[in-house]
Amino acid sequence: MAKAIAAARNGITHTWTNPVVGAVIVKNNQLLATGYHHRFGEMHAEINALSHLQNIEDARDATMYVTLEPCSHYGKTPPCAKRLVEVGIKRVVIGQQDPNPQVSGHGIAILKAANIDVTVLNITDDLNVAYNFFYRHKRPLVTLKYAMSIDGKLNDGSGKRTLLTGKPAYHDSQNLRLHQQAILIGETTLAVDDPQLTVRETTPDFPPIRIVLVNRADDLDFSSALFQTTTPIWLLTRHSTVRQDWPATVKVFVDAHWKPETIMEFLYQKGVQSLLVEGGAHIQATFSAADLADRLIVYVSPLLLGGNGLPAVSGSGRTQPLAYRVTATTALGKDTRFDLRRQ
Amino acid sequence: MAKAIAAARNGITHTWTNPVVGAVIVKNNQLLATGYHHRFGEMHAEINALSHLQNIEDARDATMYVTLEPCSHYGKTPPCAKRLVEVGIKRVVIGQQDPNPQVSGHGIAILKAANIDVTVLNITDDLNVAYNFFYRHKRPLVTLKYAMSIDGKLNDGSGKRTLLTGKPAYHDSQNLRLHQQAILIGETTLAVDDPQLTVRETTPDFPPIRIVLVNRADDLDFSSALFQTTTPIWLLTRHSTVRQDWPATVKVFVDAHWKPETIMEFLYQKGVQSLLVEGGAHIQATFSAADLADRLIVYVSPLLLGGNGLPAVSGSGRTQPLAYRVTATTALGKDTRFDLRRQ
Repeated sequence: MAKAIAAARNGITHTWTNPVVGAVIVKNNQLLATGYHHRFGEMHAEINALSHLQNIEDARDATMYVTLEPCSHYGKTPPCAKRLVEVGIKRVVIGQQDPNPQVSGHGIAILKAANIDVTVLNITDDLNVAYNFFYRHKRPLVTLKYAMSIDGKLNDGSGKRTLLTGKPAYHDSQNLRLHQQAILIGETTLAVDDPQLTVRETTPDFPPIRIVLVNRADDLDFSSALFQTTTPIWLLTRHSTVRQDWPATVKVFVDAHWKPETIMEFLYQKGVQSLLVEGGAHIQATFSAADLADRLIVYVSPLLLGGNGLPAVSGSGRTQPLAYRVTATTALGKDTRFDLRRQ
Repeated sequence: MAKAIAAARNGITHTWTNPVVGAVIVKNNQLLATGYHHRFGEMHAEINALSHLQNIEDARDATMYVTLEPCSHYGKTPPCAKRLVEVGIKRVVIGQQDPNPQVSGHGIAILKAANIDVTVLNITDDLNVAYNFFYRHKRPLVTLKYAMSIDGKLNDGSGKRTLLTGKPAYHDSQNLRLHQQAILIGETTLAVDDPQLTVRETTPDFPPIRIVLVNRADDLDFSSALFQTTTPIWLLTRHSTVRQDWPATVKVFVDAHWKPETIMEFLYQKGVQSLLVEGGAHIQATFSAADLADRLIVYVSPLLLGGNGLPAVSGSGRTQPLAYRVTATTALGKDTRFDLRRQ
């Protein structure tokens, strides 16, 4: 299974909205073939592994280790479970059952109905954290990301952008986007920071959708950096738009009451499995108040901004503190990155 | 010198307001004796090392390594430099020149006048950080200490105390006090937290002076935990006191305009070399706004308190961020301690 997991990892960032999956075929203690799901729309891991056999006859009476339950439905490719039956696989060891209701249990049932010996280990959930979360909780996995001074401030209170972190943290925060299906910011952040919200340095297969929560979409300035880029932009606006000149990259979604809960429902319907909330402070507070902050990534800068600075999370209240667990602390130049997950 | 430094460290927390000092005596590549300043009022390191010689005659033509310039003045003990001359030491290697103007350079001059070979290495400043700082800057070394949530908050905005950190961080924060000559808090912290501000678990030779900055000392509640303890309390009050029933531990100092700068001047006159500012948020902001925050010790708790929480440093503004350098990041149970020093 370790080899199957390692193979699966090759697919990271290339398979959305599919999970990453790895598979190996073993017979008589010999590793016959390894496969993984390379990218969305291409062969599943099981089929990929079978394709690497010298002879498809070798699959007969072999054991397959696969990190996720073989699929049972006709999607972009025919169902893998049926193919495993066809080629005479004798035993299938599965890393985890697929949480996707189209598959969950059905793949295993097909195998068992064909008298294939099936073992489910429940050990590979971590390969597809957002994918699993999405199907289990019926909403995206939400990560709040912010930088703050050593006294918890976002800026010095002047209303202008304060450069808190150094280059290593800056590059790191860009690479985060590679692992997210969507990024959300508010209109104040759009105006103050003028961000592109793109992954620089590398060109991802599936660049994250840039979502901007605005009061009135028609007030936006098309000259901002965001609109000079070519990947999708979704505008969630509280007032309807009359503009006709939206760039081709832009989709506008109107709801008078956009809030974290309705955004979750919307993204679930859209199949978005992971969301990175990049600010500003008010949006972070709104998501935390709604207890929709599953992960935190916090860059702490060794600057003291003092009493008038704007807190990194500010505006909307909470009555109960939300408890997290620190999963990593990383020095990035002069700055420190904290990774936390909700307990 | 390494042995002298190690010996000096035995005196840590016992020598105030003296520095810690270590000394070794070497002749013909043989270590003859080691000494250190054990506690305030007792023998200086040089005399302590001499006392450990089997025969005082062994000092003749020997080399002494001492972490600090030998003293030149009659204080609690006669001047060490003169004693080194008397016993016939031939060479003195000094870790650093004493910044105390009563000694600085005078000890070296006495040695040189007696044709003793003197070398000053300038490598032992770190042994007595606060002592050196005090004489160089004519004020105490100020450390701001605060705990904050992962979004930089002190409490949840309710006005009550929020328990942020776990036991390991709590014990650690108590031990900090062992290394400080004075601790400062404001009256709000006194009222909300009802702290003792003592070093628990161990009984220090020189418990820190507890300083409380108050508007009107006469409004204080003597039943609070602070007044149930036996170590000194200094009340810095803006309004004069008419009360006659102050406990014996309490001294009251009146100044209508107490602020960080005047507190610094006051503590310099009192010979206080180090000050730990424990809060609350407004006092931290006042000290940071005055750029009187030489060190920071920050406990970061993995709790998210959200938008209505009180920032750990809040109230008074700054126009320029203060830049620090992280000198240590330490995991303490679920919490993380940052040590920073001003750049």
